[in-house]
Amino acid sequence: MWFPLLFLLFPLLVNAERFVRFISDDGKEYTGDAILPPGTVDASKSKSAHVIKGDILGDFTVTKEVKPIKELLAPLAAERIRSVRCVGFNYFSHDNASGHPIPDFPILFYKPFTALNTPFGDVPITEGYQTQGDFLSTMDYEGELVIIMKKKAFNISVDEALDHVLGYSVGNDVSHRGWQIERGGEPEPQYSMGKDADGWAPWGPAIVTTSIIPDPQTLTLTTKVNGVVKQNETTANMIFGVKEVVSFFSMGITLQPGDVIFTGTPAGINLGSPNPVWLVDGDVVEVGLTEIGTCTNKYTYT
Amino acid sequence: MWFPLLFLLFPLLVNAERFVRFISDDGKEYTGDAILPPGTVDASKSKSAHVIKGDILGDFTVTKEVKPIKELLAPLAAERIRSVRCVGFNYFSHDNASGHPIPDFPILFYKPFTALNTPFGDVPITEGYQTQGDFLSTMDYEGELVIIMKKKAFNISVDEALDHVLGYSVGNDVSHRGWQIERGGEPEPQYSMGKDADGWAPWGPAIVTTSIIPDPQTLTLTTKVNGVVKQNETTANMIFGVKEVVSFFSMGITLQPGDVIFTGTPAGINLGSPNPVWLVDGDVVEVGLTEIGTCTNKYTYT
Repeated sequence: MWFPLLFLLFPLLVNAERFVRFISDDGKEYTGDAILPPGTVDASKSKSAHVIKGDILGDFTVTKEVKPIKELLAPLAAERIRSVRCVGFNYFSHDNASGHPIPDFPILFYKPFTALNTPFGDVPITEGYQTQGDFLSTMDYEGELVIIMKKKAFNISVDEALDHVLGYSVGNDVSHRGWQIERGGEPEPQYSMGKDADGWAPWGPAIVTTSIIPDPQTLTLTTKVNGVVKQNETTANMIFGVKEVVSFFSMGITLQPGDVIFTGTPAGINLGSPNPVWLVDGDVVEVGLTEIGTCTNKYTYT
Repeated sequence: MWFPLLFLLFPLLVNAERFVRFISDDGKEYTGDAILPPGTVDASKSKSAHVIKGDILGDFTVTKEVKPIKELLAPLAAERIRSVRCVGFNYFSHDNASGHPIPDFPILFYKPFTALNTPFGDVPITEGYQTQGDFLSTMDYEGELVIIMKKKAFNISVDEALDHVLGYSVGNDVSHRGWQIERGGEPEPQYSMGKDADGWAPWGPAIVTTSIIPDPQTLTLTTKVNGVVKQNETTANMIFGVKEVVSFFSMGITLQPGDVIFTGTPAGINLGSPNPVWLVDGDVVEVGLTEIGTCTNKYTYT
């Protein structure tokens, strides 16, 4: 007799759809469940949110209190995120365009938490990454689906993976190809140097829960530079999908609540292009993912 | 007239030499300044320590209270360490033995904080890293000098670097060559996969301060496997010394207090050896560094 009652309670217990963190008009920081304007599922267009009490990585309650959004921050503070994992060469289109063989296993690298940026923050390019004589400032972008972990995961199977995921976001794996490749590993390219500077991982604007996105391989990623579309591809074309990546990265490794995983970028980046147009001071990159929203960040010489 | 007084006060203000963290005979955890037994500077042989009150990354006091050491932990809890950076191919001997060109810039990779282990903890080797058919469990060791950051560092010069360093320790960059190279990056080797499993970065037993080690390029690193010496080399042979590594890694990047940097390993590892003897269940690796001490860890199938 109690079983149908659980179903009645369920909507009250699990009702967050789009986690955002924001500054409201009182100048204070809140975590909330974004209220979408009519006709869009882009959380970057949200003007208000239901205030969330508690911890979105643990126990929390979505309250009826609504606060206006003055400024969207990253959905989780960088200090809460223990590890930022990234996948390399994870779209057939990217690999084909760059002449890279299709990998048999996910290619893993890390960024430090200090690389995390807000969905609308400037991307600082300090002197060491600017053109210096013959060494060009080869700044690039990589629009990516981002996974946010909910629970610890250790040696979990592909089938168990999504139970450990809180939701999805979109991010830009900002990259300097000269430091990554030419100077990164000699003679092999590397993935950490040239990708780990402060603010080189904008992400957001929301964490959209797995209840809203039951299948993350159905989204469309779009990257624009100064308003011009450069990347436009479905996440169905990922070589290793979300389930496979999460399971693989948990092999002998305890993934932590709040860990984020950037899942790789499709074709359309400057790397591998016969006519690269490296980004310079003032260029604006927008990375958008359907059901989630858009990050808009200006590359800025500092 | 006040100037000579400052010299009198100085020993009272800066008197920590070998930071250790330990469980005492009361079962409680303490941070302390290790008391060395006569005739040794190996903190792993310390039986007691002066209790430290406060935070060794901030303000602290070395008290007169002495507690017995029952079990040495890593000098800083893994939870306090935000980023674990590592340098690849940073000894001429290693590069020559492996046929790798001498790099022009430090080669950077990261381990997650979950890889950190205590100086005497077992190194777990889970099923995914054990031999599976034709894919060998190619477990290896890398004895290394470890830097521990004291203060935030951003775009600091080589000359400023040591002012931001708390001290030095010794560690083992535990590596699985099959996952790192054969399956890591296809066709390029990588540095994160095959190096980032839980417990694959033992370090300790102490953080020895820059006042005791003013020049970190004068130490001798010794690695033994089951009691047999495999690596024995001076840190003077590092390609990029501590100052250069810290300065380089701060390029546009804010290094955090408590960040650790594994500075690379000399020749004598199995990688590149014509007759590698990969480590198996029960093998014991000791990495020792003069002035600091020894980590002793058993590789253990789990």
